[in-house]
Amino acid sequence: MTLDTARLSSMANAIRALSMDAVQAANSGHPGMPMGMADVASVLFTNHVKFDPARPDWADRDRFVLSAGHGSMLIYSLLYLTGYAAPTIEDIRTFRQLGSPCAGHPENFLLDGVECTTGPLGQGLAMAVGMAMAERHLNAVFGDGLVDHRTWVIAGDGCLMEGINHEAIGIAGHLKLGALNVLWDDNRITIDGATDLSTSEDVKARYAATGWHVCECDGHDFADIDRAITEAKADPRPSLIACRTVIGKGAPTKQGTSATHGAALGEDEVARTREELGWRHAPFEVPADILADWRATGQAGAAASAQWAARLAASSHKAEFERRIAGDLPHGNAMQDYVASLIAEPKNVASRKASEMALAEINPRLPDTIGGSADLTGSNNTKAGDIGPFTADDYSGRYIYWGIREFGMAAAMNGMALHGGVIPYGGTFLVFTDYARGAIRLSALQQTRVIYVMTHDSIGLGEDGPTHQPVEHLASLRAMPNLLVMRPGDAVETAECWQVALSQKDRPTILALSRQGLPQYRLEAAGENLSAKGGYRAKAAAAARKVVILATGAEVGLALDAAKELESQGIGTDVVSMVCTELFDEQDAAHHADLLPADALIVSLEAGSTFGWQRYTGAHGLNIGIDSFGGSAPAKDLFAHFGFTTDAIVSQITNKLNA
Amino acid sequence: MTLDTARLSSMANAIRALSMDAVQAANSGHPGMPMGMADVASVLFTNHVKFDPARPDWADRDRFVLSAGHGSMLIYSLLYLTGYAAPTIEDIRTFRQLGSPCAGHPENFLLDGVECTTGPLGQGLAMAVGMAMAERHLNAVFGDGLVDHRTWVIAGDGCLMEGINHEAIGIAGHLKLGALNVLWDDNRITIDGATDLSTSEDVKARYAATGWHVCECDGHDFADIDRAITEAKADPRPSLIACRTVIGKGAPTKQGTSATHGAALGEDEVARTREELGWRHAPFEVPADILADWRATGQAGAAASAQWAARLAASSHKAEFERRIAGDLPHGNAMQDYVASLIAEPKNVASRKASEMALAEINPRLPDTIGGSADLTGSNNTKAGDIGPFTADDYSGRYIYWGIREFGMAAAMNGMALHGGVIPYGGTFLVFTDYARGAIRLSALQQTRVIYVMTHDSIGLGEDGPTHQPVEHLASLRAMPNLLVMRPGDAVETAECWQVALSQKDRPTILALSRQGLPQYRLEAAGENLSAKGGYRAKAAAAARKVVILATGAEVGLALDAAKELESQGIGTDVVSMVCTELFDEQDAAHHADLLPADALIVSLEAGSTFGWQRYTGAHGLNIGIDSFGGSAPAKDLFAHFGFTTDAIVSQITNKLNA
Repeated sequence: MTLDTARLSSMANAIRALSMDAVQAANSGHPGMPMGMADVASVLFTNHVKFDPARPDWADRDRFVLSAGHGSMLIYSLLYLTGYAAPTIEDIRTFRQLGSPCAGHPENFLLDGVECTTGPLGQGLAMAVGMAMAERHLNAVFGDGLVDHRTWVIAGDGCLMEGINHEAIGIAGHLKLGALNVLWDDNRITIDGATDLSTSEDVKARYAATGWHVCECDGHDFADIDRAITEAKADPRPSLIACRTVIGKGAPTKQGTSATHGAALGEDEVARTREELGWRHAPFEVPADILADWRATGQAGAAASAQWAARLAASSHKAEFERRIAGDLPHGNAMQDYVASLIAEPKNVASRKASEMALAEINPRLPDTIGGSADLTGSNNTKAGDIGPFTADDYSGRYIYWGIREFGMAAAMNGMALHGGVIPYGGTFLVFTDYARGAIRLSALQQTRVIYVMTHDSIGLGEDGPTHQPVEHLASLRAMPNLLVMRPGDAVETAECWQVALSQKDRPTILALSRQGLPQYRLEAAGENLSAKGGYRAKAAAAARKVVILATGAEVGLALDAAKELESQGIGTDVVSMVCTELFDEQDAAHHADLLPADALIVSLEAGSTFGWQRYTGAHGLNIGIDSFGGSAPAKDLFAHFGFTTDAIVSQITNKLNA
Repeated sequence: MTLDTARLSSMANAIRALSMDAVQAANSGHPGMPMGMADVASVLFTNHVKFDPARPDWADRDRFVLSAGHGSMLIYSLLYLTGYAAPTIEDIRTFRQLGSPCAGHPENFLLDGVECTTGPLGQGLAMAVGMAMAERHLNAVFGDGLVDHRTWVIAGDGCLMEGINHEAIGIAGHLKLGALNVLWDDNRITIDGATDLSTSEDVKARYAATGWHVCECDGHDFADIDRAITEAKADPRPSLIACRTVIGKGAPTKQGTSATHGAALGEDEVARTREELGWRHAPFEVPADILADWRATGQAGAAASAQWAARLAASSHKAEFERRIAGDLPHGNAMQDYVASLIAEPKNVASRKASEMALAEINPRLPDTIGGSADLTGSNNTKAGDIGPFTADDYSGRYIYWGIREFGMAAAMNGMALHGGVIPYGGTFLVFTDYARGAIRLSALQQTRVIYVMTHDSIGLGEDGPTHQPVEHLASLRAMPNLLVMRPGDAVETAECWQVALSQKDRPTILALSRQGLPQYRLEAAGENLSAKGGYRAKAAAAARKVVILATGAEVGLALDAAKELESQGIGTDVVSMVCTELFDEQDAAHHADLLPADALIVSLEAGSTFGWQRYTGAHGLNIGIDSFGGSAPAKDLFAHFGFTTDAIVSQITNKLNA
């Protein structure tokens, strides 16, 4: 170690003081974890993490993830003390107040140095797995000179008890992600009390069983912490470092208890903690010598980051590397050519198959993509374009066999996108967005470009039955902010949706795709991406318009059939393909008025919950959908049973017109 | 063992033949698992499971859970062969066809003997944990004579890779559920191929690290299977029995490969499998001697079930035991007295606190309830009424410290409810329904009485910020079929909602409860449970009615304040407390027309997504809500920021009226 124990101790106490004072000022927050892990964090940042506060976007920096996000004052303290431009001490003073970058939990979109949003337990560690995977992949592509960094995680018992922990460490152990190191805040306390209220697990043995290197240390002994971290770095496996700590360390009457976890210590205890720590400084005041030690720690990375910048400048990969890290797509109009080929030779295929066809165009041209599936590769049609497997033996591969780990996959994809340099996509059945929903929400909140390839998007899944048939899923996902839910209805729209999804730098996309075959109805060259408008007129009324059918995805073909029949009865009918309601809502009033005329019966048609469609159809419109669970039968029988036939739809519409 | 190898082999082959033939007839399904586990299942049902096909509702039967639900033909075969009234051989012939009880995945509501709906991987095992917990609790209450049975699980690699597996086995190991035995179909195959594509885990070591007994057997050696099961039964810990099997055993060219997992074998392979197995019988034909052996196995439990019935008849607990198993509530009107006391002395408390107060009334009077929280006991206010902890040392306790395991908790509660005799409730923050959503959906599909106590139900959560603040959650849950989402706004409504939730024998309830304090607005005795109507008029317009505000939960008080201000401006305003949209939708047209008059501006007011409210407010109404993520700040600042103040609401409404 480069610093002696006394100086490290003062540095750690600066974290403790800032943390308890900020929480006290807010009268809200979590002092226990930052105070308990202050010693570990001080050793980690002083001796081990590669970072440069002056260049927070240094692509080859180590990634540090505070998976136990409630301990946010730990990372805010570290960022301030080591010299990041933000947070300032004023920002820390306004911890948890409206507009402060020092939010209750760390938010990646508020501060450089916060690599991801954490708080929902377990997901930080799972995102770190994705970061470590992205690092290894880019290392394989660009070499050690440009990409060779570690991913550090601080996790608590909550992170380790959550199910996603199992999924995340399973894939990390399997892939031998040796540059991933998890520091477990082993304080034996949860909110409800001692951990032995609810667990008897031998955590270290479990990690060892999953292919991890495991070591431990006294989390308040600087030399021992340093030894354990050094040991972890040397091991080729991912490492768990069990740091035995006292939660709220320094608070004389409350330390070691759940009372320090999630509430201010109180003025008295704060005062007594000052005495206990020998910290004679006012709140938010860090003495110059201690701050100087911390700032020196921050400046220590400048040389390495400058050397790296020089290597990049000299590299033949410079332009491509910078493009990928910036997240820009390469120039070219491959999808337009492909769409033209579909217009020339229409393909009547399931939209999951159309997605595979689109990927066969995309993957060879766009090296950024890394695909995968949670053990449904052949069903999700996610492996296309000659991409090979990403394995412990070959990190250059671009296809990930995630195993049966939907939540872990989604969270790791968030980590990959946040790391940068790659664009992850991954598949499962649409119904199992339920398993991954916590991570899908973090995709949206964190503004990550993650593409979810969610197939078998309705009762059209057929015989597997109601557990596997989404009903409420499209509605429930549309209710989520900052998420595109796209449901293309033919091969052309599917290609367009992929193009839209790839171009979203700051939001995720769900592609909801059919199991069953679909006719291609887009048969004319449009010259523009019609799906990008969210909704467009797929067919204009021939007779005087009385009806507008808003349909999505697999039901657009059905709507066109119904419209044909209605026209034969003299009922003029528009069909709108509502590919993506979020994008439609973003269009101007003229587009809305054009597609949703006030003088027509507006009908929504989707093989899922009708919930939410009334915002377009109005109180007097017609909503055709499925508001119960599905059933087990061949798809055609289910569609007939649930009224998704041309005849049933036409008669619902004509009944409504006649009512 | 009571049967020799040759006879067991024929019995197992009957399962194989029925399974492959049914899948072939449907041209859809999963033959690999039933064929691979046929030998294990034959030993299990012949020698170990306590059951009586003539009395499928025998309360003290062993529970058998096919967690690997895709292998549904295994359980359909077992039920038919052992002599359950259903499925018949005709039912099996119609496997996966519309209306058949032999659905693609086993559905608890279609067949006796199917203890729970499985298919979403990992959840069967987690539900079995809940069943085993309910069994131990009822044993502690009613004694060995009435309750002393085992819970058996067949699980595959998918179940073991899912995150919920970690949560489920963690709580089971901690609680020392020795009567829980999991038979792992260790076939080393997943859909994508060999398990080593995606995992390197030492499963047995992981289970051992989690407090489980672990043993193994050759899954095709009857004596070895029997030895391992016997060993598992003898161990006081829950047991994992690793059964080394060959997937699709018997199919000569496809066995041992993922080709047998999820598709019909094909006519050729089926024919060759017949040869390989020496099975010379037509499809769906089981020879009399083999059927007789199976039927004798089924009849072997009759004596034990009769003895048990005699013990019950003689028991002083008979009436209470039968009441509890039937799921009937005891007589009495405790909640009415409690509501009267609130009317007499109003309480201005957070609805989570009101929930605790209601539970303090309920729990002492209703011994059926078992409460708990996923490590947020003090925040969810779920421990009330002097109930003690449920621990490995005292299963009579009625409060469960679930640890940080939301999904595991929810799935186990499903298992408890399905077991019967108990009414489970459990808490976490509303936002973390995302983590438990897969199990909430199975609550709804399986029609279980599970009560979710979901607190901190809006931005009113305050400083913890957007990761902890639900926005889209109410909408996303309302879109789910067969689920009550109840959001009470004061102490009276909270008591009413508990009463409604407890009385739902066939559906689950979400109680969405506030963190922040709320005024009690229900101040007059109603004589009936107004919340049971889903929505009711909390205030009638004084001036000529121009506005109706539909508000829920914490926003009803705000709506009343806004209405007061509008009335002072001469704008007559109704306020409807829309406690539960599902129940409101079930009321008659007169109730709807009364509360939603055509001649008023209808305004929805809820501190969450506006998605879906348009079905009540129409296209020309006003929707006041939050359609973005929240923020980190004190609640009052957030409410002001997002426009949830009396002034902001009044001005939105008057602007709309003037527009």
